[in-house]
Amino acid sequence: MKGFDLRYQETRIHFGDRSVEKLKGYIQKMNHVILVTGKNSARLSGAMDDVEKLLKEEDVDLKVYDNIRPNPTTEIADDLADLLREEKPDCVIAIGGGSVIDTAKVASVIAIGGGCAEDYLRGRKIGGYLPLFVVNLTHGTGSEVDRYAVLTSGKIKMGISARYPTASFDDPRYMLSLPVKQSIYTSIDAFFHAYEALTSRHSNPFVRTLSLDSAEIIGENLPKNQDIEAKRNLLYASMIAGISLDMSPAHVVHAIEHALSGINPDLPHGCGLAMVGARSIYWIHRHSEASKEIIQKLTRERIDDAKSAEDIFKRFLEEVGFEERLSDYGFGRDDFREVEKIVFKDLRYLLRRAPFNLTRDMLIDILENSL
Amino acid sequence: MKGFDLRYQETRIHFGDRSVEKLKGYIQKMNHVILVTGKNSARLSGAMDDVEKLLKEEDVDLKVYDNIRPNPTTEIADDLADLLREEKPDCVIAIGGGSVIDTAKVASVIAIGGGCAEDYLRGRKIGGYLPLFVVNLTHGTGSEVDRYAVLTSGKIKMGISARYPTASFDDPRYMLSLPVKQSIYTSIDAFFHAYEALTSRHSNPFVRTLSLDSAEIIGENLPKNQDIEAKRNLLYASMIAGISLDMSPAHVVHAIEHALSGINPDLPHGCGLAMVGARSIYWIHRHSEASKEIIQKLTRERIDDAKSAEDIFKRFLEEVGFEERLSDYGFGRDDFREVEKIVFKDLRYLLRRAPFNLTRDMLIDILENSL
Repeated sequence: MKGFDLRYQETRIHFGDRSVEKLKGYIQKMNHVILVTGKNSARLSGAMDDVEKLLKEEDVDLKVYDNIRPNPTTEIADDLADLLREEKPDCVIAIGGGSVIDTAKVASVIAIGGGCAEDYLRGRKIGGYLPLFVVNLTHGTGSEVDRYAVLTSGKIKMGISARYPTASFDDPRYMLSLPVKQSIYTSIDAFFHAYEALTSRHSNPFVRTLSLDSAEIIGENLPKNQDIEAKRNLLYASMIAGISLDMSPAHVVHAIEHALSGINPDLPHGCGLAMVGARSIYWIHRHSEASKEIIQKLTRERIDDAKSAEDIFKRFLEEVGFEERLSDYGFGRDDFREVEKIVFKDLRYLLRRAPFNLTRDMLIDILENSL
Repeated sequence: MKGFDLRYQETRIHFGDRSVEKLKGYIQKMNHVILVTGKNSARLSGAMDDVEKLLKEEDVDLKVYDNIRPNPTTEIADDLADLLREEKPDCVIAIGGGSVIDTAKVASVIAIGGGCAEDYLRGRKIGGYLPLFVVNLTHGTGSEVDRYAVLTSGKIKMGISARYPTASFDDPRYMLSLPVKQSIYTSIDAFFHAYEALTSRHSNPFVRTLSLDSAEIIGENLPKNQDIEAKRNLLYASMIAGISLDMSPAHVVHAIEHALSGINPDLPHGCGLAMVGARSIYWIHRHSEASKEIIQKLTRERIDDAKSAEDIFKRFLEEVGFEERLSDYGFGRDDFREVEKIVFKDLRYLLRRAPFNLTRDMLIDILENSL
């Protein structure tokens, strides 16, 4: 697979093996940068070493902030923003998956525009941001090409339109160290970006082109996800699903998952999506022609009705090795009321993008079927 | 079909019915603009009236330059550039198909960077350009989203990397007045953008996503090309094929066609492509796996070998009503030597992008089969 460069909206995307080397062109005249990562993956993948080497070659001073954890909170973004205000770096380089990228997005906004993460979650206007370079480490987030950031405030996980990265590097080599489970979770995340963008009220022909192809590529490559060619394809599918999501944002499945991983931050985002996804598809399918098309692309099976869409998607998950249930993460019927409250109150902005009105009964049905 | 806005590279694309109204946001603070068009289509389509109305509402002064003809020459670009240098407009608005857009691109470059069109064809560096807004009137050019411009110098038609439009308006309503023949020609042009970009040495996964979908949409909609929904789809297919072409430029088919319509400027570009396309496909097919895939998408027929690819493409052309031959435009065997000279000398830069080395024998075979 050939690499390529693409400018989408404000982001320059560099895709392909060793594409990270193009970071050099951006940092040549810089003096001081902050490197933002999580605990392990930046080292494990080799990305950290590559970036450090590039910075050293260009004599750029760096400081590492490696405090980001999955499902990051507003406090972490504020903490990073404090560091950025103190250090006044020329840019931020985020090396990681969605959690790292999203936190870096919001902190880069606070560093210039002032306020705190909470303010922006409540609608404060974006007033500029530091240059942000993203070295993406998962084939699921899409955050390397979209303007969204998701942060948790208290128990509420909320998405905002923050900013596009200045440039992003999708280097498939870094995907090889992803644990198999993470690989499945992130691919499912990418699939639901494609699926929800396509079935949303905001869908358009370009979303359709990208979402259908993304789903087809994921369907072909996820079962053999551990070789480099499959990784390249999955990363590509995730990137174009990210563009889809940016043009036409997610709705029901992401709303329910955000509620769940807001309550239990140990629930990985893609895992939560996979759990509630099958039954969500059942309901979405009844109100969206495109749902059928995209499930067919993913699974290469003929879909007759909503029930067969649900069943065939479930079988696909089993075949790629996903078998977890909500109960594995401690969820029970006692939690339904809280999920319901969050989905219909705090996350109702997500529901408005769905092709139908999700009712309380439907939500309970989805949760019941995912226990 | 829902409209949408998309930033690709330097161009802001506004796609959809009435998308032209978004031109207003760009011209609000301007005083004086030059409107560039051909003879009839800008009026006939209604685009001219719409743009004039918008300019009037915003009190923007305008001057019309309507001297552009199909297969435009460097002289016309120079003439327009002279006008731009005299008038010093705030921007150029091109209303037309590829010929109008390409001439406006080059003139907008000369107006700021100096020199003449010939200089840029010979490699003069682009030194800035006037803002250029494009109201696209055909579903074939792709020039509204790509950086290329094709001009004829003497008998040689050459493409250069000129500039991206500042913003483009793909408004399907303007396609309804395209004569049926033009509609077929331009769709075939769009198809060959998708086909050649995909089969080029420079192809990449994003080109693949866009080219295959473009071909499928053209195959579905070209036979019923006169209703507005088909027009929307064909315009969309042409736009994404334009992005494909921008990322991975054309080769053999465009080289041969440029030679032919350089010799006879009355030959419409898409018509020339269709004439030599079928037999070119025969040769390209033998060296490109992707050729089979895209012809299958276009025709929904199973392709076995190079000969069946050629035959099935020919049948597709017949079915959509294309039956012209090179001899209808006065070409005979006497012209082969001149075509050969132009293709292998002046246009050899195009051949280098092909997935194989086109030999003289192959070229003669293609021309023979297209007479």
